[in-house]
Amino acid sequence: MGSYTAAVSDAPLLEETVMTATFLYLALLAGVAALALSVYYARAVHAAPEGTERMIELSTAIRDGAMAFIRREYTWVAVFVVGLALLIGFLLDDGILRALAYVFGALLSAGAGLVGMRVATGANSRTTEAARRGGVAEALPLAFRGGAVMGFTVAGLGLLGVVLAYLVVVEWGGIEIGRGAEIITAIGLGGSSVALFARVGGGIFTKAADVGADLVGKIEAGIPEDDPRNPAVIADNVGDNVGDVAGMGADLFESYVGALVAPIAYAALVFVGSDFLIPAIAFPLAVATLGMAAAMIGSFLVKAKGEEDLAAGLHRGTNVALLLTAVGVLGLVFVVFGDADNPLGLWLAVLAGLVVGWFVGKISEWFTSDHYKTVKEIARQSQTGPATVIISGIAEGMRSAAFSVIVVAAGIGVSFWAGDWALGDGGGIYGVSVAAIGVLATLGITISVDAYGPIADNAGGIAEMAHLPPEVRQATDALDSLGNTTAAVAKGFAIASAAVTALALFATYTQAVGLEAIDLSRAVTTIGLFIGGMIPFLFAALTMNAVGRAANKMIDEVRRQFREIPGLREGDPDARADYTACVDIATAAALREMIIPGALVVVIPIVVGYIDTEMLGGLLAGALVTGFLLAIFMANAGGAWDNAKKFIEAGAFGGKGSDSHKAAIIGDTVGDPFKDTSGPAMNIVIKIMTIVSLIFASGFVS
Amino acid sequence: MGSYTAAVSDAPLLEETVMTATFLYLALLAGVAALALSVYYARAVHAAPEGTERMIELSTAIRDGAMAFIRREYTWVAVFVVGLALLIGFLLDDGILRALAYVFGALLSAGAGLVGMRVATGANSRTTEAARRGGVAEALPLAFRGGAVMGFTVAGLGLLGVVLAYLVVVEWGGIEIGRGAEIITAIGLGGSSVALFARVGGGIFTKAADVGADLVGKIEAGIPEDDPRNPAVIADNVGDNVGDVAGMGADLFESYVGALVAPIAYAALVFVGSDFLIPAIAFPLAVATLGMAAAMIGSFLVKAKGEEDLAAGLHRGTNVALLLTAVGVLGLVFVVFGDADNPLGLWLAVLAGLVVGWFVGKISEWFTSDHYKTVKEIARQSQTGPATVIISGIAEGMRSAAFSVIVVAAGIGVSFWAGDWALGDGGGIYGVSVAAIGVLATLGITISVDAYGPIADNAGGIAEMAHLPPEVRQATDALDSLGNTTAAVAKGFAIASAAVTALALFATYTQAVGLEAIDLSRAVTTIGLFIGGMIPFLFAALTMNAVGRAANKMIDEVRRQFREIPGLREGDPDARADYTACVDIATAAALREMIIPGALVVVIPIVVGYIDTEMLGGLLAGALVTGFLLAIFMANAGGAWDNAKKFIEAGAFGGKGSDSHKAAIIGDTVGDPFKDTSGPAMNIVIKIMTIVSLIFASGFVS
Repeated sequence: MGSYTAAVSDAPLLEETVMTATFLYLALLAGVAALALSVYYARAVHAAPEGTERMIELSTAIRDGAMAFIRREYTWVAVFVVGLALLIGFLLDDGILRALAYVFGALLSAGAGLVGMRVATGANSRTTEAARRGGVAEALPLAFRGGAVMGFTVAGLGLLGVVLAYLVVVEWGGIEIGRGAEIITAIGLGGSSVALFARVGGGIFTKAADVGADLVGKIEAGIPEDDPRNPAVIADNVGDNVGDVAGMGADLFESYVGALVAPIAYAALVFVGSDFLIPAIAFPLAVATLGMAAAMIGSFLVKAKGEEDLAAGLHRGTNVALLLTAVGVLGLVFVVFGDADNPLGLWLAVLAGLVVGWFVGKISEWFTSDHYKTVKEIARQSQTGPATVIISGIAEGMRSAAFSVIVVAAGIGVSFWAGDWALGDGGGIYGVSVAAIGVLATLGITISVDAYGPIADNAGGIAEMAHLPPEVRQATDALDSLGNTTAAVAKGFAIASAAVTALALFATYTQAVGLEAIDLSRAVTTIGLFIGGMIPFLFAALTMNAVGRAANKMIDEVRRQFREIPGLREGDPDARADYTACVDIATAAALREMIIPGALVVVIPIVVGYIDTEMLGGLLAGALVTGFLLAIFMANAGGAWDNAKKFIEAGAFGGKGSDSHKAAIIGDTVGDPFKDTSGPAMNIVIKIMTIVSLIFASGFVS
Repeated sequence: MGSYTAAVSDAPLLEETVMTATFLYLALLAGVAALALSVYYARAVHAAPEGTERMIELSTAIRDGAMAFIRREYTWVAVFVVGLALLIGFLLDDGILRALAYVFGALLSAGAGLVGMRVATGANSRTTEAARRGGVAEALPLAFRGGAVMGFTVAGLGLLGVVLAYLVVVEWGGIEIGRGAEIITAIGLGGSSVALFARVGGGIFTKAADVGADLVGKIEAGIPEDDPRNPAVIADNVGDNVGDVAGMGADLFESYVGALVAPIAYAALVFVGSDFLIPAIAFPLAVATLGMAAAMIGSFLVKAKGEEDLAAGLHRGTNVALLLTAVGVLGLVFVVFGDADNPLGLWLAVLAGLVVGWFVGKISEWFTSDHYKTVKEIARQSQTGPATVIISGIAEGMRSAAFSVIVVAAGIGVSFWAGDWALGDGGGIYGVSVAAIGVLATLGITISVDAYGPIADNAGGIAEMAHLPPEVRQATDALDSLGNTTAAVAKGFAIASAAVTALALFATYTQAVGLEAIDLSRAVTTIGLFIGGMIPFLFAALTMNAVGRAANKMIDEVRRQFREIPGLREGDPDARADYTACVDIATAAALREMIIPGALVVVIPIVVGYIDTEMLGGLLAGALVTGFLLAIFMANAGGAWDNAKKFIEAGAFGGKGSDSHKAAIIGDTVGDPFKDTSGPAMNIVIKIMTIVSLIFASGFVS
């Protein structure tokens, strides 16, 4: 193990070391393997029978809608990316290389979204058909594999992108590591740009469609949910995919790439001339490689015999992947950091990340699953009307945010202390950086489990719309109900990963602009902190209002169709709703509504950074804190209301149709933009502001 | 003007300078004059006719209830104060003197609360009677004078307390100014301790009573609001006084004393040996003296001819007071800071404070008054049901918080820059400190206007309960409606003053513990920031849940009385509800519920401070940012829902009894704990944590 250290001391360029090359090529291999697994799963899904003609027709409508959204979205993304690429190209050193890396990152994320959506929207009717033929035992693996295509495409392209860029820029291009890391970081911004549109625009789309479909369909026209007569029904199903598949995928792609580049960029700034430079760059890639292998193994273990072991069957894969990663990294630290005082410290840092991701997800589950006290208590409050349901949901959401903050703060503390123990000076922040990798190491399977949710949800919708027998719907309902829990857990996980990644990027930003301190006893930093703290509140307000306006446009269109298409409302089989018009309207409204909030989070950090880099430091810290709190608060309040309603529908406190149920429905409706629009949008807010700052750091100081 | 500088250079002790003595005795005089004005107004109120026997009976019941609450509350306060005094006495240097100052501050605040409540609860029936005899023209001055007793008692005792303590400790006691300032600061903690119970306990009490009275009375028993058959009706009226008179008074007493001591303590730490030491200590007292005189003059101008000039008549006093203060301070800076490079800078700093207080109040008015767009829009959302009302109210509340933060951030920037321009090194933070005095200079009249609200509200309740003719109720309704707007403005003002005061105390804390920086690039500071940011969320959650539990106890008691007292529900004139039992239950529940949140905000800073003072710095900053945001968000969302309901009741969107109205009522109920419990509690959270930290600063570093 001593050999590479000597080599480093002689020649700081990485290509001369065996270690870097080994881990780079292993990571490359892992990325390629993940993509191969995606192809394998995609083929498996594709080979499954598609079901009846009616099912195919519905599935096609959803897929066409989703693709229409994606096309429109990517047109806007393209304009945005070109604009920002020009800005980067002109304003910054190495502008062209950075702009290229930025576009490369955006292409990867967009590509992953496209593939994932295509397969997910093809897996829905096949899952219904599998449920029809073999119940949950056959449907679970299929829905999971549909999601796994997204999962392993996102993780594979993320890892591959960073490794390829590293090889091209540093290894083959011979650019010195400090400059090289700055160039590679732009990949993360590419991911962020796509995520901004997918998560925020997608979040507005999904709830505009949902609320629009519900308000006119269920309430005005008096037709049930998922009824094909409702012109907005396809948009509603498209929305599930847009929000939970593409949105979540882009969000986590951004986190993953951010978590990979942050420790590399940090090491390139801090460990130059130190023996730890090369291990510190190789380590995050090695952890990601291990995590990827573990996730791939885990993905083969997802299966269930029946409804009773459905949850266990789905979670087995994740648990095994986490365990394998934890054990693998324990060995890894001795290989990579054999020369460090306490290699074990880096294992503890990664472990802290793993535990934080798992724990925040668990907190989300405790607060949003009807197996636990909180949801039951909120449901009980429905007996005294909607106001008490709302108050209690808000209070519990805030409480869950407080607990999650304590977990994250503890994670920061442990990983900082562990990194410091392992490497001494500069090791603490490095420890926090690798904790972010720890959160995201097994990303492939995490996304798979999450993307499974909307597939199961869509499968249920198709079963309903195609008038399949009740036992099919029962099977898809069982899958869907599990999907609600996994969605809540994934949301908590996504937020935790966003917070820790943003923190790692924030620390790197501090180094990149050469700040001695971000000193809150300076007025300008405090002003930054205040303004940063306010941005998530403003963003939440803007996106909530945006959902309202977009939903109104949707409502107008549905009313128009009911008015102008003869026989539609009455269920005349020849009358066909114009699903595409609804999808188009929601798409246009969603994308238009995100211009102002989207511009805000890109422009503010750049402007403030050119004024004062320390003020920007305060701003990022303020946004990180309130953004994290609002994200958890809104996601968990929304999830808890949703499940409180379901708990009552299952028979508690008067059951379906009772006054309690009506009160709970109001809570659920309030929760919709909370949990699916504004809450998840916070992940993007905190990450994109930090990575924009990091990218423009060299501009600020020159 | 040059003379005193020479004196200072020879002898740094203050008693030798003419300037200090002059301004100290002028401030003493202003404090005494304010108390004299209180006595004058109290006598004027007392001399007014009390009305019919029934009115006297009702007024007595409310006063007895309020006094019962106060007695119980002060028993708990006493235990708390003795405990903390012992801790201070044993742990800190000058422990006994500090403990004495602490107890002194608590006594002053408690005394102000007692006097203010007594007079306010005596002014209610007299206001009703004045409305009966001479309409609003006679009722407005009476209600205002009732409130002014609280206003000038709070401001007078606050100023007097600080000046007396300064005289005793520094001038007569000969204790060196640095040590002396530390001792005097403990007065602020005394005010905080009382405010904690009055604002948080009072906030829980008022909403428990309100919700309890509404849910059982209006909904279950089907009797109207303010009906004397409802056993909780007196508790509800008591609650208005407990929350808006005693709670607001104690809250602003705390801010006022905090704002006075912060610049003195800061100057004693930073300007020692500088020519600016004495002016910097004299200036805040001089500004407060000027503001007090201006407020007293303004208070004589409050009158109205009829309903049309009611608002103008009430606001005239405040506007004149603000204007006089601004002009007076312009002269003052040249007298006090004649030797500074740019004395005008200190005028600008004070002006920035005046403008921030006024502006944040204005933003609250824009977002919560039905004369403006927001409330109308929220009311319009009621047409699509309660869920859209709630979402839109939350979004607008968050938006108002964002705007208010921008105003505060701008105020910090201007006052910092102006102070730096005026005094050079250390002048910037001093500028922020005197901005806090600027916010609070005319406190006497600000509280008077606010405390007028519950008196008018109670007067309306008494008119209703005593079955007075409709024209009396119309007059009291006009007074009450104006009171709702002034309450919203006062809330915004209270929050802004809390934030700026906390910031001034925070800056002084940094000096007191001798921190070079509060560096967010250190992990421990970031952890502090996260934990601090989370505390307001946790506090809001705890207090919202507390209201729910306390209201349930109230509901049980009301149900019991309706069950066990024969003829009560039917309106048998011999059946008397047991009002006292309801007051007792709400009191006990409110005070018990605040133990945990209250302990949290005192214990956490002490524990964290002993661990790491920089971590505590991060914690205070985090709590300040999210506390301010949550305070504005919750207060304005609640105020907007309240007035959206009233807007509909006035005839919009279907008017009273329509589905829109029902939806708006749900919004209003959600807003109750927002605007009257959790929101205002944030003021206390951010101030008490900062002042506790400042008091224990010497303990942390020793």
